Amino acid sequence: MTIAQQHTIDQQQPIGEWIEWLAGFGKTEDGGVTRLLYSESWKQAQLNLQQVMIHKGYEVRFDEVGNLFGRYSGTVDPASIILTGSHIDTVQNGGKFDGAYGVLASLIAVHQLYLQYGPPKKTMEVVSLAEEEGSRFPFTFWGSKWINGQCSLSDAHELVDSEGISLQRAMVEAGFGEPIPQAKSDELIDAFIELHIEQGIILENKQKDVGIVSDIVGQRRYTVQFSGESNHAGTTPMSMRKDALRLAAEFIMFISEQSEQLDSSLVATVGRISVSPNMPNVIAGGVECSLDIRHSDDSLLDKFESIINQFVQAAKQKQMEMELDCWLKIKPVHLSDTHVELAYKQAEALGLSYEKMVSGAGHDAQVFGATCPTTLLFVPSKNGISHSPEEWTDSKALEKGVELLKSQLYALAYE
Amino acid sequence: MTIAQQHTIDQQQPIGEWIEWLAGFGKTEDGGVTRLLYSESWKQAQLNLQQVMIHKGYEVRFDEVGNLFGRYSGTVDPASIILTGSHIDTVQNGGKFDGAYGVLASLIAVHQLYLQYGPPKKTMEVVSLAEEEGSRFPFTFWGSKWINGQCSLSDAHELVDSEGISLQRAMVEAGFGEPIPQAKSDELIDAFIELHIEQGIILENKQKDVGIVSDIVGQRRYTVQFSGESNHAGTTPMSMRKDALRLAAEFIMFISEQSEQLDSSLVATVGRISVSPNMPNVIAGGVECSLDIRHSDDSLLDKFESIINQFVQAAKQKQMEMELDCWLKIKPVHLSDTHVELAYKQAEALGLSYEKMVSGAGHDAQVFGATCPTTLLFVPSKNGISHSPEEWTDSKALEKGVELLKSQLYALAYE
Repeated sequence: MTIAQQHTIDQQQPIGEWIEWLAGFGKTEDGGVTRLLYSESWKQAQLNLQQVMIHKGYEVRFDEVGNLFGRYSGTVDPASIILTGSHIDTVQNGGKFDGAYGVLASLIAVHQLYLQYGPPKKTMEVVSLAEEEGSRFPFTFWGSKWINGQCSLSDAHELVDSEGISLQRAMVEAGFGEPIPQAKSDELIDAFIELHIEQGIILENKQKDVGIVSDIVGQRRYTVQFSGESNHAGTTPMSMRKDALRLAAEFIMFISEQSEQLDSSLVATVGRISVSPNMPNVIAGGVECSLDIRHSDDSLLDKFESIINQFVQAAKQKQMEMELDCWLKIKPVHLSDTHVELAYKQAEALGLSYEKMVSGAGHDAQVFGATCPTTLLFVPSKNGISHSPEEWTDSKALEKGVELLKSQLYALAYE
Repeated sequence: MTIAQQHTIDQQQPIGEWIEWLAGFGKTEDGGVTRLLYSESWKQAQLNLQQVMIHKGYEVRFDEVGNLFGRYSGTVDPASIILTGSHIDTVQNGGKFDGAYGVLASLIAVHQLYLQYGPPKKTMEVVSLAEEEGSRFPFTFWGSKWINGQCSLSDAHELVDSEGISLQRAMVEAGFGEPIPQAKSDELIDAFIELHIEQGIILENKQKDVGIVSDIVGQRRYTVQFSGESNHAGTTPMSMRKDALRLAAEFIMFISEQSEQLDSSLVATVGRISVSPNMPNVIAGGVECSLDIRHSDDSLLDKFESIINQFVQAAKQKQMEMELDCWLKIKPVHLSDTHVELAYKQAEALGLSYEKMVSGAGHDAQVFGATCPTTLLFVPSKNGISHSPEEWTDSKALEKGVELLKSQLYALAYE
């Protein structure tokens, strides 16, 4: 596909067709999308989006790291930016909707408002963020962190992908990475709105049109080591065993049951496990597993961590060793109460059923949420599936999200 | 090492030195032994053992599959064979004692009896069995099954090793595999005695010199499949999950606790597990694990299997799928009460402390046990470690086993 072919798309096209169009950049054999940061498909997607924006009359710019912006300047308070968008990158063989939906929905919503109501009072700006997933480089939210001053170009030298290419080199090869003098230093992001697929099954199960997010969970990830004693499965009586896999199984049951007891919105997951020597006739001498815990209240995560540590101590009484290493700790983000309340009212006014939600997944909104009033809106994900070619949301459901987004944008930029 | 160098070993050498000598054939870098069936190191070990036997005045022969026999013919009832020995093959990077100890102890014991008491009444025969471990080909007890008529040369065509070489080809390349006309058809194995390291920690824990085995456990192996639903670890509430790894953990706890409750000598082991997709932030959609259960009473294994099946049924109430596939079912073997009683008395007479035991591991004795009165004797294994370069038993402990073996052989062949 060439730019010339692509940006001629009809402006009245339904969002589902825009999704298919963007999914063409990095399309995989089985209908998924691989659009890693600064890859050729990523670059083509951003350049084509830029052309679409230009054709729709947006003022367009890229920033230093490749975030793409398109704006309609405000007539009354142009330095106040109502920013909306999401990320353009995907995981390896991911879906068509994760990130892309938020970018395209913003592009459509802002343009429709502009066509209908003319220039806004405050500046409306769409952003196609360079990176969120952390799929190529071991760093997440590269795009939104850049905008919010939470990373610098020097960070890019240290980060390398699986082939040893630095983020710096990849960025320069994609045409970015050069400092750009700030033209307008008095500008301020007045609000950020992100529309995203839920990537979960709550909205579908509850048959709600949209989710309005009050909080984005804090997340802690651990590596857990269990050390027992490898022995013959036939000759070692149960009473003489130090079975690391049995201890790990007890741990999995423990964290599952304890999390359920502590709070219904606490989640605890052991998703990865490796056993040594991993043979049918040998008692496991060692086990390593992951642990991922998430909740919107950081003090509840503290409390849960202390419960987990009680288990670690108890393991020693079984003459086994256990180690818990926390290697990721992200604090919860509470979003703007005012904007969330506004979204409830707007959903009602639009006749949309909505669910007050906590986001269990990380989103760019959490980076903006620490800096400016932020809204995060969800539409349902079919079967809750995400990060997969099977990721799916029907066009009608996508359009309901766009309607709510337009309503928010109108309230913030026009009223 | 050449044969000429090796068979000149002093006949009065302690057994520990014989063990080191034999471990020279197939020695690994870290002090273990790899002597797979029909490999060059296996062949050298058998040929050198043959030379040692010849020098000790044994009548020597190989059978069709490479079992090595050395005998002193009986003077009164030469067609009645008192057979003693164990296997010469090892697992990959196994220990020096597993199998080898029984072969060498038999060789020493029989020769010492011959030197001390002259020719026996019944024929005393030492056997270095070709194969027991099933390490190279997916078939165990090739040596003892051949002797007991439980396999045929035609089986050898179908069995292939990891490099695609058939057992037949490997056997022929090692110089065996040709039918040998039976010279003496009136011969009968009157008794089989196997001396082996325990490969467990019971004798060491109880500080006993020898173990006298009454039963060899029956063993069942299963592959267990758990099918849940792979979902996002952050966005899927605990109550909406179908976590296959949590179900597997519950299963591991269940079989461990139930086996302990049912009988203290029942063992149940999940040693191997694989999880899909095995990612920290994804709920496991599928788990496959092994299950190994062993007991000397087949009806108790039946009962335990029915308890396990109750768990499988219960899993369906959690809207999860579980499948249990039994792919190995070995019946328990009860050894000769007469010979076991004899061994108790002899141990007492020799001043050896002994433990009446059930063998949780499989041994050649179980194949002979179905055909003729059989004795299986154990000496302690340091820390219960086996199938490892760290496998170890002190020379003094090894010698106590040889003493008990001599006592049994004398009673059966000379009295």
